[in-house]
Amino acid sequence: MASAPKANAVVGQSGGPTGVINASLVGVIEEARKHPEIENIYGAVHAVAGMVKDDFIDLGKLSAKTLQVVAASPSSAIGTSRDKPDEEYCAKIIKVFKKRNIRYFFYIGGNDSANTAYILNTMADEVNYDIRSFHIPKTVDNDLMVTDHCPGYGTAARFEACALMGDDLDNRALPGVKIDVLMGRDAGFLTAAAALGKQRDDDGPHLIYVPERVVSMEKFLGDVDDVCNKLGRCVIAVSEGICDDDGVTWAKKLTDQAETDAHGNIQLSGTGDLADFLAGQVKSKLKVGRVRADTFGYLQRSYPGMQSQVDVDEARWCGRHAVRFAMEEDNGSVAIKRTGDGKDYAVELFRTELKNVAEHTKSMPDEFINEEGNGVTDEFIEYAMPLVGELPKTEYLGGYPRI
Amino acid sequence: MASAPKANAVVGQSGGPTGVINASLVGVIEEARKHPEIENIYGAVHAVAGMVKDDFIDLGKLSAKTLQVVAASPSSAIGTSRDKPDEEYCAKIIKVFKKRNIRYFFYIGGNDSANTAYILNTMADEVNYDIRSFHIPKTVDNDLMVTDHCPGYGTAARFEACALMGDDLDNRALPGVKIDVLMGRDAGFLTAAAALGKQRDDDGPHLIYVPERVVSMEKFLGDVDDVCNKLGRCVIAVSEGICDDDGVTWAKKLTDQAETDAHGNIQLSGTGDLADFLAGQVKSKLKVGRVRADTFGYLQRSYPGMQSQVDVDEARWCGRHAVRFAMEEDNGSVAIKRTGDGKDYAVELFRTELKNVAEHTKSMPDEFINEEGNGVTDEFIEYAMPLVGELPKTEYLGGYPRI
Repeated sequence: MASAPKANAVVGQSGGPTGVINASLVGVIEEARKHPEIENIYGAVHAVAGMVKDDFIDLGKLSAKTLQVVAASPSSAIGTSRDKPDEEYCAKIIKVFKKRNIRYFFYIGGNDSANTAYILNTMADEVNYDIRSFHIPKTVDNDLMVTDHCPGYGTAARFEACALMGDDLDNRALPGVKIDVLMGRDAGFLTAAAALGKQRDDDGPHLIYVPERVVSMEKFLGDVDDVCNKLGRCVIAVSEGICDDDGVTWAKKLTDQAETDAHGNIQLSGTGDLADFLAGQVKSKLKVGRVRADTFGYLQRSYPGMQSQVDVDEARWCGRHAVRFAMEEDNGSVAIKRTGDGKDYAVELFRTELKNVAEHTKSMPDEFINEEGNGVTDEFIEYAMPLVGELPKTEYLGGYPRI
Repeated sequence: MASAPKANAVVGQSGGPTGVINASLVGVIEEARKHPEIENIYGAVHAVAGMVKDDFIDLGKLSAKTLQVVAASPSSAIGTSRDKPDEEYCAKIIKVFKKRNIRYFFYIGGNDSANTAYILNTMADEVNYDIRSFHIPKTVDNDLMVTDHCPGYGTAARFEACALMGDDLDNRALPGVKIDVLMGRDAGFLTAAAALGKQRDDDGPHLIYVPERVVSMEKFLGDVDDVCNKLGRCVIAVSEGICDDDGVTWAKKLTDQAETDAHGNIQLSGTGDLADFLAGQVKSKLKVGRVRADTFGYLQRSYPGMQSQVDVDEARWCGRHAVRFAMEEDNGSVAIKRTGDGKDYAVELFRTELKNVAEHTKSMPDEFINEEGNGVTDEFIEYAMPLVGELPKTEYLGGYPRI
């Protein structure tokens, strides 16, 4: 391996924003400044869209104070993009990189971003242009391979845990059926996090449906009816990607003209259809007076002041480590390994191949989902609880003994 | 005025839960314990519904630690109700009160609750049963008469301010049109609070629509188009109660079978219809690639860990003062007067007649709404800002000078 070249670096933020992707950005910036091999650290405005049109800002001169505020801010501070670069797109980027003498490429995002880093690295190799191409994991969905969990997940999971905690208290005060539709197109980790705030035995969510298990309308209504008969109310967390028993998503069935983005993903967020449909079914098929449904939408990934401390720290470390790895290696993706003994949570970071992260996504393992397919297991709680930080304690008195 | 009787007290929480109604409950409990005239302090489980069926818990023995957690918990810790008691209903309550020797009645809620307190007091007078009947203000809508503002508003307003702050950053990162539908059936105060988190000149929400001003679809689309042409994106906060230029709510126009509660209010929360409708209009009528819409739903009133300190303190004081007033007076509603000189925020509490609060609700004053009817004024910001507490600072770098 040749020694690290003296050149410029670029960092980009790709895909959906999260609560801590800016902490990873700051990690890259602060580590890059420590290495004389990196002459300038540029930010690509709107990710690959900025790279292809030579649209950069200089991140090297930001004050420590500014960086602290950036790290604490949700969303993607230098803009993001959902463009999926093809070979022609990447060829243009490499041309811009050559012009700017950019030989370090740090890309914060999901598996599509790892794939972009892989393609760019491969194409640069083909034209004998030496770049070091690194992917830094980010996703609220927690669906990346290799890594134990993804930066961005803990903070979004914290939002869900708190949201359901409050919503369950609201439902206790005014009982009925409450359906909450949460993010999670293919992986149920984020919806499952709705369970993390449960403090009392009969706390909701009482039912949790994730995309990894199909659920027929009959089964769904039967489950809701059972809980209502037992508790007189029911709080349900439903993943936006849940599927009917034929494997087709309920959302897809509901929409004739599904808007698609450039990755071919169906738009599930940003519409209340699924929630309203499920509420309508419960209203019409079960005898429940009060049925309400909410779709949490973009609040889940962008709510400020709600970072999980573990998550923001890890996101920053991942950014820093990408730069450190780039001093030694040609390319790679940063991943997290859990090293604690079960009681004490601890992690270490390591490098994995870009291809390992680029090609597939991860689903919830079977042991995280209950047998009925309508809830999570203790194994999931043990896995996810350290990632969200300490949650507020709440009290409800309505179940206290009567006088 | 006769001296305060030695008897039992009951407290109830009515209407929609808020983030600080439990702080008012705790205020009542802790003050009631100080007065030997009050022998026991009972909680009516599910408000008047508990009173009418003699369903009470004893609040007098809760530990200080429990009370602290209760005060910090969102929702209504002893349950709430949307029942609107008629004379027969109130007669039954008075019967229960007599049986239990309840002669102090504290009711935390909106104007309907003040009305219930008024009716109960009047009916008790008629049968020569001495009760002292007090209303403690609570509403996220901030629509009560007399009081400068309502406990519950500051915390909900804080939620909105933060939500739009994050959502605007998300929209900067992935530009397009974003429509957020916020609570506010008749009063726009809560939707207007979406403006409180603005930190940069071009921060969203760029447009705010409140129920106090009608807006035609033509005007709405024209406004959105103007902002998009100027900024390349547009974030919009819309009150669930906004009306077309014929004065009929858009929500009413959208629903054939509007669910109504016992107060005759149309259900606006708990459906994504309005948001989806507005997004559809923007998509089809304007040339915007990315249009998203969220309906914030019950998160707005029940999200835990998000209390405004000012709000939670005032809510508690209002609870305490109701008990103090009850030692001197027969009935009344607690109200807040702003006494600061504009720079320093300060308040004092006073008693007002139940009828003053029961009969009408308050709308946003004209000076809080801009001339165009699509935004708020500096006067509104000055009024509302002290109520939400310090907000997170954020940073967005995408507008920094290019290199």
